[in-house]
Amino acid sequence: MESSTQLERLFTQLQAGDRAALGKAITLVESTRSSDRPLAEELVQRCLAKGAKALRLGITGVPGVGKSTLIDAYGMALIDAGHRVAVLAIDPSSSRSSGSILGDRTRMERLSGDEAAFIRPSPSSGALGGVARRTREAILLCEAAGYDRIVIETVGVGQSELEVDRMSDLNILLMISGAGDELQGIKRGIMEAADVLVLTKASGDNLQRAKMAQRDLRNAIMYMPPRDSGRQPEVLLTSALEELGIQELLEHTEELYAADVASGRVKRRRQEQDLYWFAHALQEGIQERFHSDPHVVDALPAMQRAVLAGEMSPFSAAKELLDRTYGRCSE
Amino acid sequence: MESSTQLERLFTQLQAGDRAALGKAITLVESTRSSDRPLAEELVQRCLAKGAKALRLGITGVPGVGKSTLIDAYGMALIDAGHRVAVLAIDPSSSRSSGSILGDRTRMERLSGDEAAFIRPSPSSGALGGVARRTREAILLCEAAGYDRIVIETVGVGQSELEVDRMSDLNILLMISGAGDELQGIKRGIMEAADVLVLTKASGDNLQRAKMAQRDLRNAIMYMPPRDSGRQPEVLLTSALEELGIQELLEHTEELYAADVASGRVKRRRQEQDLYWFAHALQEGIQERFHSDPHVVDALPAMQRAVLAGEMSPFSAAKELLDRTYGRCSE
Repeated sequence: MESSTQLERLFTQLQAGDRAALGKAITLVESTRSSDRPLAEELVQRCLAKGAKALRLGITGVPGVGKSTLIDAYGMALIDAGHRVAVLAIDPSSSRSSGSILGDRTRMERLSGDEAAFIRPSPSSGALGGVARRTREAILLCEAAGYDRIVIETVGVGQSELEVDRMSDLNILLMISGAGDELQGIKRGIMEAADVLVLTKASGDNLQRAKMAQRDLRNAIMYMPPRDSGRQPEVLLTSALEELGIQELLEHTEELYAADVASGRVKRRRQEQDLYWFAHALQEGIQERFHSDPHVVDALPAMQRAVLAGEMSPFSAAKELLDRTYGRCSE
Repeated sequence: MESSTQLERLFTQLQAGDRAALGKAITLVESTRSSDRPLAEELVQRCLAKGAKALRLGITGVPGVGKSTLIDAYGMALIDAGHRVAVLAIDPSSSRSSGSILGDRTRMERLSGDEAAFIRPSPSSGALGGVARRTREAILLCEAAGYDRIVIETVGVGQSELEVDRMSDLNILLMISGAGDELQGIKRGIMEAADVLVLTKASGDNLQRAKMAQRDLRNAIMYMPPRDSGRQPEVLLTSALEELGIQELLEHTEELYAADVASGRVKRRRQEQDLYWFAHALQEGIQERFHSDPHVVDALPAMQRAVLAGEMSPFSAAKELLDRTYGRCSE
């Protein structure tokens, strides 16, 4: 896609905050063409070396909770406070094409029209590991381009919400208040990864219900294990349409971030995250090579059947397959 | 340790329900001597082929919650109902020696004196994977020896509570009622793996507090994702010393088990568990071989430092190490 000189120019434009260059750079790191990979890695390397820092904020919630509307309002409030805001989406299950950029722009009407904002939908496909890598790299590119508030939005309910906690400094979980079923459809562990819980659409007829849900949730939180910060999440109410609670949410997240920078939590989390992704990428790579070994591809299904039928213990079966695979190799 | 004829005799004695033979058989599967492994696997294989079935019940809770006292009372109630009860302990962090058998016997006074009970402490050491394998194999041996109620007790708070869910049909989580901090010290995910919550020591001065905690917990449970059974856990009160609630607990677990056998949940869970342990043992074995490769041992620390220092992205570092390791091999 790019020669080394073109890369040089791309990096210069990126550093100058050029949105088109940033878009192009993200396309490069998202590319599945292996010939693009060396340049993509060089670009990421340069951005890493720059060491720009931003608040990386995960925003999670089931479809229909009002994520786009909230991000639109919250992002505009950040811009009013002098920040530059990038919104990245993670959606490993998505089959959305690049045409959805338009979709995202429509979803976040004000933000998408603002010079200080950059909105990028998730890439269309790929395994989660791949999505994680691309998102992490896109974060670095946005930081190098001068965006100091990065919103990582997860789309849908699934693994991605747990993975976002491996990329973010803080997480916000959005919920709609209903008859005691605020947590319906929310997967295990997601609530426990939240630094802030936000009950959305808390206005009009829904306000009373939202306040009750707020009280219930605060009680329920006492029964949950505390986050690694030692804090229990605060429960806030917002109405993005009526602009209620947005400023409070912003002040709260900024306070948490400032405290976490001061205490060293942000730095510690990022180091843990880096080691996690290194170990994770190694593990995935090792597994991938094992499971694409033709011998393993041949032998695995029969062994799984034997385990399911109770003919072999899982441990004996594993030992046999490993011995056969690596025994063969070391000969 | 054993010749093939000796193994034959051991298996015959085991099937006859001989407790000494069962103890000897478990020692064989726990042995870390690789020369014992083939006979251990043959024995496990035979027990597997026998296809005996038991209710495998995980019992979890922080130290001091009264696990031993409850298991003693609950186990005796099972025996009174005509069952044979085996108690196995999982404690990957333990450095207890075989001398702790005495300790366990003292902990469960009545049960340890009963002919229909078999109590076995956890093996002294080993990685979690090893502990899991040994515990799973010990379960099979107990089943082959005619024990139809197997209690898998986890000692301490940690990974073991999550692993026990991969071996059990049902899980009981024990808690002490206190000032709203019933869940203190309980790790993420453990509560969500519970089929039954039991508030222990619910008698005397503590009864009122236990009843309040029961009500609070029932409310909190509504905010938690349901278990794979679709059920939310029931919250029961017991006092093992005063024999309160033990019979109710027994009836409740027997009902759940009967329902889960009838619905096919027990069978499905066991198949999932078998496939999980097969995949897990494969994964561990693959990782182990990678990380004991001298080339990897040499290169890994410097790469981790480069990742931590922000000099390399975790993904580039992983790719480089994989290419160097496997590239070398495939040449």
